[in-house]
Amino acid sequence: MSSPSGYRLDELAHRFGLELRGGGEAVIRGVATLATAQPQQLAFLANPRYAGALRDTRAGVVVLREEHADRCPVPALLARDPYLAYAKIAALFEQNPAPAPGVHPGAVIESGARIAAGASIGAFCHVAGDAVIEDGAVLGPHCIVGHGCRVGSQSHLVARVTLVARVRLGERVLIHAGAVVGADGFGIANDDGRWLKVPQLGGVSIGDDCEIGANTTIDRGALEDTVLEEDVRLDNQIQVAHNVFIGAHTAMAGCSAVAGSARIGRHCLIGGGVGVLGHLEIADRVTITAMSLVTRSIQAPGTYSSGTPLEENHRWRRNAARMRHLDDMARRLAELEKRSARDKDPL
Amino acid sequence: MSSPSGYRLDELAHRFGLELRGGGEAVIRGVATLATAQPQQLAFLANPRYAGALRDTRAGVVVLREEHADRCPVPALLARDPYLAYAKIAALFEQNPAPAPGVHPGAVIESGARIAAGASIGAFCHVAGDAVIEDGAVLGPHCIVGHGCRVGSQSHLVARVTLVARVRLGERVLIHAGAVVGADGFGIANDDGRWLKVPQLGGVSIGDDCEIGANTTIDRGALEDTVLEEDVRLDNQIQVAHNVFIGAHTAMAGCSAVAGSARIGRHCLIGGGVGVLGHLEIADRVTITAMSLVTRSIQAPGTYSSGTPLEENHRWRRNAARMRHLDDMARRLAELEKRSARDKDPL
Amino acid sequence: MSSPSGYRLDELAHRFGLELRGGGEAVIRGVATLATAQPQQLAFLANPRYAGALRDTRAGVVVLREEHADRCPVPALLARDPYLAYAKIAALFEQNPAPAPGVHPGAVIESGARIAAGASIGAFCHVAGDAVIEDGAVLGPHCIVGHGCRVGSQSHLVARVTLVARVRLGERVLIHAGAVVGADGFGIANDDGRWLKVPQLGGVSIGDDCEIGANTTIDRGALEDTVLEEDVRLDNQIQVAHNVFIGAHTAMAGCSAVAGSARIGRHCLIGGGVGVLGHLEIADRVTITAMSLVTRSIQAPGTYSSGTPLEENHRWRRNAARMRHLDDMARRLAELEKRSARDKDPL
Repeated sequence: MSSPSGYRLDELAHRFGLELRGGGEAVIRGVATLATAQPQQLAFLANPRYAGALRDTRAGVVVLREEHADRCPVPALLARDPYLAYAKIAALFEQNPAPAPGVHPGAVIESGARIAAGASIGAFCHVAGDAVIEDGAVLGPHCIVGHGCRVGSQSHLVARVTLVARVRLGERVLIHAGAVVGADGFGIANDDGRWLKVPQLGGVSIGDDCEIGANTTIDRGALEDTVLEEDVRLDNQIQVAHNVFIGAHTAMAGCSAVAGSARIGRHCLIGGGVGVLGHLEIADRVTITAMSLVTRSIQAPGTYSSGTPLEENHRWRRNAARMRHLDDMARRLAELEKRSARDKDPL
Repeated sequence: MSSPSGYRLDELAHRFGLELRGGGEAVIRGVATLATAQPQQLAFLANPRYAGALRDTRAGVVVLREEHADRCPVPALLARDPYLAYAKIAALFEQNPAPAPGVHPGAVIESGARIAAGASIGAFCHVAGDAVIEDGAVLGPHCIVGHGCRVGSQSHLVARVTLVARVRLGERVLIHAGAVVGADGFGIANDDGRWLKVPQLGGVSIGDDCEIGANTTIDRGALEDTVLEEDVRLDNQIQVAHNVFIGAHTAMAGCSAVAGSARIGRHCLIGGGVGVLGHLEIADRVTITAMSLVTRSIQAPGTYSSGTPLEENHRWRRNAARMRHLDDMARRLAELEKRSARDKDPL
Repeated sequence: MSSPSGYRLDELAHRFGLELRGGGEAVIRGVATLATAQPQQLAFLANPRYAGALRDTRAGVVVLREEHADRCPVPALLARDPYLAYAKIAALFEQNPAPAPGVHPGAVIESGARIAAGASIGAFCHVAGDAVIEDGAVLGPHCIVGHGCRVGSQSHLVARVTLVARVRLGERVLIHAGAVVGADGFGIANDDGRWLKVPQLGGVSIGDDCEIGANTTIDRGALEDTVLEEDVRLDNQIQVAHNVFIGAHTAMAGCSAVAGSARIGRHCLIGGGVGVLGHLEIADRVTITAMSLVTRSIQAPGTYSSGTPLEENHRWRRNAARMRHLDDMARRLAELEKRSARDKDPL
């Protein structure tokens, strides 16, 4: 391959198993959008919504599906999934210099903590005395690794991540700023009107290759662990309550929330702002659309929704007012049908 | 009582006022779920959903309601509220060693701050010059206690908690990581198209025994204080706007949000993701189910809801499309009824 | 004008262009609510809901609309927009002493960072080597300014704000505690069942005079920037995904969320808990009411809503159950109408 500063089109085609149409010797030095790409940059077209931008693109090459190739005025790399192919190529141009191994002098490491020689611990980090940081792990500034926590090899806590207690991260886990993993679950019992806190004695287990978004919270279990299997992808500001189980390869969009002891299957797609009630089970390969509330277990794969469509407010008011009378309307409709049937056939 | 490492069943029964069925001299050394408990562990059955797990349990004893006792293959402790009884017993086995009193050398305490001798201040804490930390209070690492703040006796800021300004915590308040209490309320006035910030001159008052979840935010008041009375329990990622009042013993589940100047009564249960509009009043002992939006004041105790049921997406689409025409449907239904009445009685 | 400790009523009237009714020489030394104001304090009446409190007020003066002046038992300052006038006056009494310029010895400034002499950097701040902090900027304790970030002149990061990477703030930007700006966008591509992370190569651009609430998250763009134009006001716990564009003077209430590449116009008002799906466009001067989900682009100014009204739970259950049959009801209603028309006119 050519140097990190540039790749020939035919090299890219060969490396990623894509068919190239045109311009094999041109060199690509970066990526950009269809609208802004320059002749030494690669662009992609995945969402047909943006196909109109093809016409005027000045990109050096465009990654796209074969069906769009004819309309592409510049060289094209054909991919069944242009977004995926783009993701692989773009990684060539990402610059994420790994920080040097070692512990920043401004970190506080309690006596007894085991930190691998190849790990990097940033300024103002705080690592508890019984914590373990494995080789190649990177803690950006302001991270807290509490009692009984383990950060697996090559995992990356970007900055200001808090692992409160008994959190075990697999390998290559990526956690963004502000996330809190392993806080007490919300367990309270009513004692004659006052609340009594229920001890939260479990932990959190996060599988390999998970990603956890900024300001997301994952509570530790009441007795057993809260579990994310491998390759679970959580966006920002998600709330995962105690003893939730999320199956491998499931992705959840921002602001979704899962209540205690719910079980979500593998390969699920949970939309933004979705809520899942406690103790429910969701099968594998279920999609929930944005801001739906899951109020019952879901046994079959498929797409599920709740909610009402957006309307102009004055129409919405009129329609919403009728929702309060829907049961009444249904009864009156049935009554009319009965009457209409009687009229037809009076006997 | 026996040593912290174990308790005899008859001791537990006596201590917590429960009836024991069988096995009085056996010793319990921990707690676990019905499914995983070993003979020296105690389990509980509160949610009948899990009653099937009784049959195969190997627990040393199960806390349960009398109605389930016959099906329990091991000794049982009978409780009217097994979850509450379990919570009390489990506290015996929780290990939360109190940190030693004193100020970590890596903390910054501004001159003038009053910190009780029995308080514990962790690494990287920052305490303003006019702040007060009372006896027995514990600040984990990375906490910020800003101007005019007071942390009451025995209160516990787990880690990375920010009290921005004019926040007064009662006694035994527990705040989890990432919570922000006392930030500016969201007060803006429109000045001919541009926004003008409205000064936020109030504070926040948090009563005794409140619990505040991870990454929850509670803004300080515009003029007077935002108030949580005693024993209010907030889960993670809750948003409480300026000048909200939450009555004693109310519990709110994750991701709920209360807009400015709303008043929530005592002993309320607010479900996950619930929204409460500004300036409303909610009476005592009101329950709001998950993801409902409270758009009007509620005078009477009871349970309230909004939203639509979850459906398979292709059915949901068909039904949701009709919601846009509900008012029209209601009018047409009334018209048919009128016509049908006329047909019956043409005069 | 009089000293900072007090202002005569006639001075206030003159300074803010308001008509004064009565008591010109009285002196005002602070602001308070109608119910609690003392004779040396100013109160205001903006929301007619609180007009009843006028009668018993002991305020030294009340800012109100002319229509309420007759009912005011104390001097009044007449304003077309009392809330706006109050906001301007209250600023006189706000005490926000600017911290002294300079870098706290407990901060970590990486070599190469450019920090203006007039900037103030608090304890435990961490500034990357290629970051720029302009004159008059204030970083409270525990702020992180990462690679490629710039904090514009007079901007204020209150405390524990994280600018992850490639974040450019304009002038006078105010960011509250716990906010995370510039984290990776949530870009994942499905690679035969496993997720592949899509590099997030863009940044975040925040215009002058923006305000960003506590624990709000704004991701950086995938290729180009996520953009907030000038004077955008975001409340707490808002989620702004990669490549979102928010037009000038738009305000968003707490817990709202905008998915990737959505474009929101200028002068919009987005209610609390609102969701906006990805790639949509919302025109200028659009209002979305609380907890609505925007599922399609909006071309025309106006107010838009979705959702259902709050009801007592037992009624709601009956009505919600009928929503699953709404399409069926609509068909049956149309059928009855057809039949009824035939009955009337059998030919």
